[in-house]
Amino acid sequence: MTQISDTAREYARAHGEQFRQELHEMLRIPSLSADPAHAGDVRRMAEWLADHFESLGLDKVAVMETAGHPVVYGEWTGAGPDKPTVLVYGHYDVVPALMEDGWHTDPFEPVEKDGKIYARGATDDKGQLFIHVKALESYLKTAGHAPVNVKMLIEGEEEVSSPNLVPFLKEHLELLRADVCVISDSSMRSIDEPAILHSLRGMTYAEIDVEGPTDDLHSGLWGGAAHNPAVALVQILAQLYNPDNTIAIPGFYDDVVPLTPEEREMIAKTDLTEAQYKQSTGVPAVWGDANYNIRERISARPTLDINGMWSGWSGPGPKTIIPAKAGCKISSRLVGNQDAHKIFDLLKSYIESITPPTVKVDVRLLTTGKAALFPFDIPEMQAAARAYEKGWGVKPIFTRGGGSIPVVAEIADLMDIPVVMMGYGLDDDGLHSPNERFSIEMFHRGIETAIVYLEELAAG
Amino acid sequence: MTQISDTAREYARAHGEQFRQELHEMLRIPSLSADPAHAGDVRRMAEWLADHFESLGLDKVAVMETAGHPVVYGEWTGAGPDKPTVLVYGHYDVVPALMEDGWHTDPFEPVEKDGKIYARGATDDKGQLFIHVKALESYLKTAGHAPVNVKMLIEGEEEVSSPNLVPFLKEHLELLRADVCVISDSSMRSIDEPAILHSLRGMTYAEIDVEGPTDDLHSGLWGGAAHNPAVALVQILAQLYNPDNTIAIPGFYDDVVPLTPEEREMIAKTDLTEAQYKQSTGVPAVWGDANYNIRERISARPTLDINGMWSGWSGPGPKTIIPAKAGCKISSRLVGNQDAHKIFDLLKSYIESITPPTVKVDVRLLTTGKAALFPFDIPEMQAAARAYEKGWGVKPIFTRGGGSIPVVAEIADLMDIPVVMMGYGLDDDGLHSPNERFSIEMFHRGIETAIVYLEELAAG
Repeated sequence: MTQISDTAREYARAHGEQFRQELHEMLRIPSLSADPAHAGDVRRMAEWLADHFESLGLDKVAVMETAGHPVVYGEWTGAGPDKPTVLVYGHYDVVPALMEDGWHTDPFEPVEKDGKIYARGATDDKGQLFIHVKALESYLKTAGHAPVNVKMLIEGEEEVSSPNLVPFLKEHLELLRADVCVISDSSMRSIDEPAILHSLRGMTYAEIDVEGPTDDLHSGLWGGAAHNPAVALVQILAQLYNPDNTIAIPGFYDDVVPLTPEEREMIAKTDLTEAQYKQSTGVPAVWGDANYNIRERISARPTLDINGMWSGWSGPGPKTIIPAKAGCKISSRLVGNQDAHKIFDLLKSYIESITPPTVKVDVRLLTTGKAALFPFDIPEMQAAARAYEKGWGVKPIFTRGGGSIPVVAEIADLMDIPVVMMGYGLDDDGLHSPNERFSIEMFHRGIETAIVYLEELAAG
Repeated sequence: MTQISDTAREYARAHGEQFRQELHEMLRIPSLSADPAHAGDVRRMAEWLADHFESLGLDKVAVMETAGHPVVYGEWTGAGPDKPTVLVYGHYDVVPALMEDGWHTDPFEPVEKDGKIYARGATDDKGQLFIHVKALESYLKTAGHAPVNVKMLIEGEEEVSSPNLVPFLKEHLELLRADVCVISDSSMRSIDEPAILHSLRGMTYAEIDVEGPTDDLHSGLWGGAAHNPAVALVQILAQLYNPDNTIAIPGFYDDVVPLTPEEREMIAKTDLTEAQYKQSTGVPAVWGDANYNIRERISARPTLDINGMWSGWSGPGPKTIIPAKAGCKISSRLVGNQDAHKIFDLLKSYIESITPPTVKVDVRLLTTGKAALFPFDIPEMQAAARAYEKGWGVKPIFTRGGGSIPVVAEIADLMDIPVVMMGYGLDDDGLHSPNERFSIEMFHRGIETAIVYLEELAAG
């Protein structure tokens, strides 16, 4: 007996080229949520998506306002109240991309080459969110209906930590009501190792400013008696790390839930070799806390990274100044029971305690995100596992993710539903980096898997 | 009996307004020697000066080529071979200036306000070099001759450490032959305390790059096992300083000639109070090596300052990357017998020795400058002291300068003549900083003092 998912999958295969051309249209819109100069492009992206939802026959399609960038919504609820409802979450915004960062082609003019689509947002998250849109389309254009109800919630502020999504969820809880949330905004190690994420790291992101003299000083006339703010900043930052590469902020690890031997055994199966990590990143040697394997360090353990740093003169040639100030962006990936606000307070207190009176310091919170953790023996997770086996052809593994999708914990908490993270990226897709790319095969396999998932969800 | 210097001083007083208007013309030309984009402006500045020399009737006026920016030359040798010849050295180039650095008015549109001329280059060194041009003019336009022979050597690369001046000096040694060199490119503490510098600090200026991953990495997907290059850089830089604020590079102080008790006693007379240093710089508290007073720290002791630092994302909002690289500009002011190249070698070796294998480091030399030291009981220095007493009205002090004019030691060594540094700036003129300014009264008093100096030199 032919199932409606078979026909939908045939449709998806027949329309692959068209789907990709539509994705290219999305990728051409530079929807940078962090940059006020691109606010118009962000809105244009939202409107493009809403128009697209309309063209597929979704109901209640709307560009819904928030205090920041809008949310795009659309639903198909023709399966009726006795069938499960799945909420698809994705984000249409992207991080900045500049040619001078090392892009080989225009980040906002997608290029297909060697089986990849190169563009900012290709994998994070335009390409991945579009998989669910095309899966639903494949049902609606063939059977005329889908096995379950589907609600699409695509936001425009994920890359700035979704400051307005929680208020939006609270305000529209009834509209969004669902039995499970599915998100494709993560990656697997290789195409043969599809992964379902059951855990994500949270985040505390801060900015630090150190101020010394009122203006830049001539280093010859004044140097020797002024605490150089760049020197003060490096002295402060260096004290955030222990010699064993752990984090020196007092209390930082207090709330981390220790990994159990069973978890560590499971994680060990997906560990990376040093060679693999070096190959994927280009680092000269692997670094970190030697008490944990590489996979644990990058997914199950907290981190502290300097994301940006600036002071004084960075143009050509010498400029002999003592800079008036120095600053940095610094962020921590959090796990287990670490609370993002508490971690910020610890960071701020520690920095203030080690800053000498020769400079002034200001530590400001930019954003936070909750960590998330779900059991993987529930039906919604197991349906996803079966979907991969059928749609992908490979049994998936359950893993912890090192990244942060702050909204995952928020959705789970507010709506009291599990969140199934079926990521279709590859670990080396270069997201947030120059030459971000998305595998064309992943895109097409993803659509087929998403088609099967809706059927498996209905089966329970 | 009226001396010709009296008539010349009267001329200078009568033409003060015109002299300043001419200086404004110079200040309007953005002759930034470090920035290739301003090469045309640098040349325009040189041509303006040469035209001005021609208009005053100087001989052998020329814009003389070097491997970099040109030197402007002109001379008046009508005093004859039995009179001394003074070589005036100055520089017509300036350091960068951007409105966003905190300028209240356009740095290249001079504004006279509260007795100051505000513009990039006002004090360093266009305003100061022009003093000698106007002093010579004041003789030539009145008596028709000057008491001594004067040669003007105005270069365009002082702010990039004069890379082509030594070859130029060597090539044109005969043309430039003189008995003394006078330079006005330094400052005094207050208008009532004119200072003659007999010592300058040297310089070693380097750039450091730290590289980690090939591209910026997503801090969630990869963070925990990659040594963040910004973290590595701050860890390296923090190790350059000891807890007592001295410099931790092994061997750094080895060649420093200790200050004698007599020198320290002389320097103590010109020391700054903590309040004065804070007032002039705006720092919250004075910093440095507690074994030395403030004046010693900023003029007679070596330093190590970070002049600029950069890594990753510095735009608005968060960007969750591990930067691919981090870098800084770092420079040392040198004293006594410290050799600039040896200090660079020590810095490079030490940094390489403390850099872990998890990142790559590159330490490059940008520029160097020799330190200089002259006795102050020689006739050329004593003539300068008398010139201040007559032309300025105040007996000057002899001091050490904290800044570097690398060419001072080069001129002294190559030409075997003393260099007399009669600076007309004020310590808080803000040179190399936003809102650089030059006191109008200093400009006019400087011209009169320069007029008297030529006469006192002739007297021997």
